[in-house]
Amino acid sequence: MKQTNEPGKIVVLRLNHRPYRDQRLTTHVCLTARALGASGVIVCGGDASSQISSVRSLGNAWGGSFSVVQKVSPLRIISEWKKDGGRVINLSMYGEDMRAPMSELYHVYYTLAQPLLVVVGSSKVDGKVYQASDFNLAVTHYPHSEVAALAIFLEKLLGNRAWGRPTPGSRIKILSALKTKGGIISRAENY
Amino acid sequence: MKQTNEPGKIVVLRLNHRPYRDQRLTTHVCLTARALGASGVIVCGGDASSQISSVRSLGNAWGGSFSVVQKVSPLRIISEWKKDGGRVINLSMYGEDMRAPMSELYHVYYTLAQPLLVVVGSSKVDGKVYQASDFNLAVTHYPHSEVAALAIFLEKLLGNRAWGRPTPGSRIKILSALKTKGGIISRAENY
Repeated sequence: MKQTNEPGKIVVLRLNHRPYRDQRLTTHVCLTARALGASGVIVCGGDASSQISSVRSLGNAWGGSFSVVQKVSPLRIISEWKKDGGRVINLSMYGEDMRAPMSELYHVYYTLAQPLLVVVGSSKVDGKVYQASDFNLAVTHYPHSEVAALAIFLEKLLGNRAWGRPTPGSRIKILSALKTKGGIISRAENY
Repeated sequence: MKQTNEPGKIVVLRLNHRPYRDQRLTTHVCLTARALGASGVIVCGGDASSQISSVRSLGNAWGGSFSVVQKVSPLRIISEWKKDGGRVINLSMYGEDMRAPMSELYHVYYTLAQPLLVVVGSSKVDGKVYQASDFNLAVTHYPHSEVAALAIFLEKLLGNRAWGRPTPGSRIKILSALKTKGGIISRAENY
């Protein structure tokens, strides 16, 4: 019987964090990556230590193993990722419609089990990032949000895996989650 | 032959905008709503005039009719929306898994053609909003981002309609959108 592969890990590379302007957005990139099944985020650009520590402290309460680190050179990270056998996906409104190469991506991720580095920008992204990426993928060709693009990419790629996973070590979970028509309101509880 | 309905419009209600803290996120909520097929956004909370004007000026270049306005009372907007025959959907990690009632939502939106008000919070959302909503829906039960939740909701509900629509009056569109492996890099051009 053929051995089945565990799919490779997914890490998000957040480019050019600007400490004042992007403080909340970088946090939302991290939280979205975490909630929807990525293994971690690498932040490049200005100092993101407060965003990183807030995402880490969330991990303490909600469990799971999610890593957030800051590094200096995105191009070096990309080239090392590829040298290690991984694939690089740049999310950009200038890319091709994400839905077109989806079956190729499923093959890369599930069959070949290659780890994916998903690159999201903030301000204008260096042309070298486009050239170094295996895929440049767009969620619509309109300007919107790297958080939205990342969310839709992860949900499309991971399907059910994006919607829930065991989170060992969690101290919080949502106990009830009900549609309310004047009824019980869903709530989180510590346990 | 039975007459077919055009689906109702979708408007996003952005709660409790905080001028300093939420400035970029409110912009990203608006851009995501716009890119993925909503008709407009209503912003409640603190002054969002600079976010509103930047989203409006984007509309001038990219075309389409998308409205962004600021109003005072979210609960009044919700109650008037329902009085006019619309349905209210609150996106929250405390809601039920969004995928469960999706066929009901397709029925509401496509068959009954009821307009939808999609509520997204910033800070803690008033319990009255949960009670007043027809659906409280979650994209995973983890903390992440209203931008991500809105994006996934719109993409799931609208499918192909979220990915591209005619935008009358646009002065910009993406001309080429290619996967690059050292090849041509996609770019936007004015025309």
